[in-house]
Amino acid sequence: MQEEKKVINGLLEALKSQDEESFLHIAAGLHYADLAEVFESLNEADREFFTDKIDAEMFAAVITELPDTMVEEALGKFSADDQREILDLMSDDDRVDLLQDVSDETRDTLLELLEPDDIEVTRSLLRYGEDTAGGRMTMSFGKIGLELTVKEALDELRDAHADSETLARVYVTDEGGRLIGRLRIRDLAFNNWNTPIKEIYLPCKRTILASADQEEAAKMFSKYDLIVLPVIDEHDRLLGVITYDDALEIIEEESTEDIERMAGMAGEVSERSYLNTTLSTHFKRRFPWLLGLAFLAIASGYVMLKFEYVLDELFILALFLPMVVAAGGNTGGQASTMVIRAMALGELDEGSTAKVAWKELRLGLLLGSLLGVCIAITTMFVLPFFYSDMPAEVGFVKFGIAVAIAMTAQITTSTLVGSLLPIGARRANIDPAVVAAPAITTIVDVSGMVIYFFVAKVVML
Amino acid sequence: MQEEKKVINGLLEALKSQDEESFLHIAAGLHYADLAEVFESLNEADREFFTDKIDAEMFAAVITELPDTMVEEALGKFSADDQREILDLMSDDDRVDLLQDVSDETRDTLLELLEPDDIEVTRSLLRYGEDTAGGRMTMSFGKIGLELTVKEALDELRDAHADSETLARVYVTDEGGRLIGRLRIRDLAFNNWNTPIKEIYLPCKRTILASADQEEAAKMFSKYDLIVLPVIDEHDRLLGVITYDDALEIIEEESTEDIERMAGMAGEVSERSYLNTTLSTHFKRRFPWLLGLAFLAIASGYVMLKFEYVLDELFILALFLPMVVAAGGNTGGQASTMVIRAMALGELDEGSTAKVAWKELRLGLLLGSLLGVCIAITTMFVLPFFYSDMPAEVGFVKFGIAVAIAMTAQITTSTLVGSLLPIGARRANIDPAVVAAPAITTIVDVSGMVIYFFVAKVVML
Repeated sequence: MQEEKKVINGLLEALKSQDEESFLHIAAGLHYADLAEVFESLNEADREFFTDKIDAEMFAAVITELPDTMVEEALGKFSADDQREILDLMSDDDRVDLLQDVSDETRDTLLELLEPDDIEVTRSLLRYGEDTAGGRMTMSFGKIGLELTVKEALDELRDAHADSETLARVYVTDEGGRLIGRLRIRDLAFNNWNTPIKEIYLPCKRTILASADQEEAAKMFSKYDLIVLPVIDEHDRLLGVITYDDALEIIEEESTEDIERMAGMAGEVSERSYLNTTLSTHFKRRFPWLLGLAFLAIASGYVMLKFEYVLDELFILALFLPMVVAAGGNTGGQASTMVIRAMALGELDEGSTAKVAWKELRLGLLLGSLLGVCIAITTMFVLPFFYSDMPAEVGFVKFGIAVAIAMTAQITTSTLVGSLLPIGARRANIDPAVVAAPAITTIVDVSGMVIYFFVAKVVML
Repeated sequence: MQEEKKVINGLLEALKSQDEESFLHIAAGLHYADLAEVFESLNEADREFFTDKIDAEMFAAVITELPDTMVEEALGKFSADDQREILDLMSDDDRVDLLQDVSDETRDTLLELLEPDDIEVTRSLLRYGEDTAGGRMTMSFGKIGLELTVKEALDELRDAHADSETLARVYVTDEGGRLIGRLRIRDLAFNNWNTPIKEIYLPCKRTILASADQEEAAKMFSKYDLIVLPVIDEHDRLLGVITYDDALEIIEEESTEDIERMAGMAGEVSERSYLNTTLSTHFKRRFPWLLGLAFLAIASGYVMLKFEYVLDELFILALFLPMVVAAGGNTGGQASTMVIRAMALGELDEGSTAKVAWKELRLGLLLGSLLGVCIAITTMFVLPFFYSDMPAEVGFVKFGIAVAIAMTAQITTSTLVGSLLPIGARRANIDPAVVAAPAITTIVDVSGMVIYFFVAKVVML
């Protein structure tokens, strides 16, 4: 990796000095993923130079690695002829990905540039949603008829697919195009050339429907350690395959989406392009939650207004008010995170609610009472050194007990709310990640205010 | 997937009725990953039956899919002879994973059960840390000498590795064991049997040092779409390979770790075993942060005490206090999440700090002022209908302006703090995920209190 850094720095220097020859020379030695990273980091002028000088074949690979938000602009820097060549050189699934990331008008213009047989494949792939198994699959993969021999199969594959990475698996189909079984290239390599395919193919147990969610496909890859997953229609006809590198990408995308949702971010995932996402997109993704939660938080203020007389009587209560309220947010956030992640990884099913509730109830009581004891000790033994106005009829002991009880109640409530709300959301077909830390915190802030003032009133006043 | 559910339900029924014959029959048709999920969900008695009846070979595969926390207990249910067989049947990397998950005493006992040549491989793999490339690699992979022909290479591979999944790539080494290049099985299959390997091997550009972090390996897989990554020592000697399925696992593990750290959870990642993790482990992971943040939150209370006179004079301020304070936590949490995720995905490097700060400063001002305007409008035009005690010398307009200014200042500060603290943490070699939402929220709660009361005092009193 160290050496790569040096090469990349050399490329950046060539760009800065607009040195075409050394730019092309260095670029030729780099992986397209590295070139894409360099392109992302450039300013407008250097991007112009980059697209101007690089040849279309290389850029056809680079563009597959660019963040979605940059694709349209990058492609726009090329002439129609170059665009045609770039699209022509892309694999069918990458081409469809690209077309899904551009505006409708651009898509129509680009489609017209395609070769006649590419148009057909592309249009049929475009019918599947971007986040479905069909939208992720490639139609270029090794497929052989049931009636061939090993030699015939090898000849056919060599002609059709010598370049294709997906030869890790070869699929066997019948005359109707239905998926019958699979072969590994090694089964062809290690068997006699006269062996009929019929005798050596293996059954194909794992398949996915084209209409299924891409997340389901990714889960199958990770659970069954797959390298290729065939995509079929309702009649078992083999439509295409998804490969392991797509699974990696899906898992990263879905994790990012979960993480961002859990932090209260709306809309599409930003896909490794924090810096290249416009200010207005960032704004649009953050503002709705902030506004909603702000108005929800007025409820906390309302509770404070209602209990004004309690604060009036004993203003030292204010010292521990933020602590008790915030502790609920923190523990509720932890509980919801654990539960949301466990659901995302497929651990918790419908029957687990009672188990989760029981676990979190005990955990909440444990965490709350221990934290309560810590706070009570502080209040009884440390606070007296700093505060001398405690009314005699209350006293530090009673005060400490009240704060400890409020803390225990707040943490137990919040732990339960934090763990059960995401489960409830999923039941209601809402993405559980939506009721993560920010929402939970705002909700338990309100209950925390009520609990704190109520306990204070009952114990002390 | 629907059909699998039915089969799994059948297995659960067989377990419930302790029907050995149908249990074994159904289990034989299931993937080991499904069997592991079933095992996880069982109660103690059913687990006993499961381990009692299942044959060692099958369990050798099942145990690789169990969460780390369950491995020791599960293996303990078998006799020493069965344990020996299970360990014997596992691949070297899975065996090492297992040995890293058990206690030191159990590890020593288990090591003594191994076959002499397994012991050597295992001990040498155990020297690498669990989270390093070396700790993840397998030593069973296709390796051939530079001097062979295609036919000789095929014969050698067929004998040694007919079963191995890692034949997706074959590595070429010189006499010193140094990595020279790579081949795909298809290069062997599609070439004449007399072709010398020397003429057809490809250079091997991507390698990783055994001591490197597993996360670095995973990043290379996802960036370069690798299927196998060779692991070398400092002298370029080929030690083993990491395969794509490990990369999937690493990416899931690291995402979970990030998500949990960001929610303020200490210690090791729980690896898809929320329900099977003991109460005390959950407790230990959550308590330290809760305690630390609780004491930090006292600072907020202290600020409130200090500004008692402001609240005394105008208690209606309490209505919007939680809102302004909490909005800072929410926006700071969003900013830190975006930045932490972008760093985890390798987007932000050392030079990006100024760009991040500039982006978040503008974003903070934008979000804050717009939210401020919304709140000011509410305060000026809605509040008068509900609240009649506003002092004439203050008035709803001045009040609304004060709240809006406080909101803008709090959101701008919090957005900056939330985005820059994680970057600062990484500079100080602290995991950035540690200064995520919970810590940020607690910090900006304090600044929010100060801002709110200070602005209120200056504008209105």
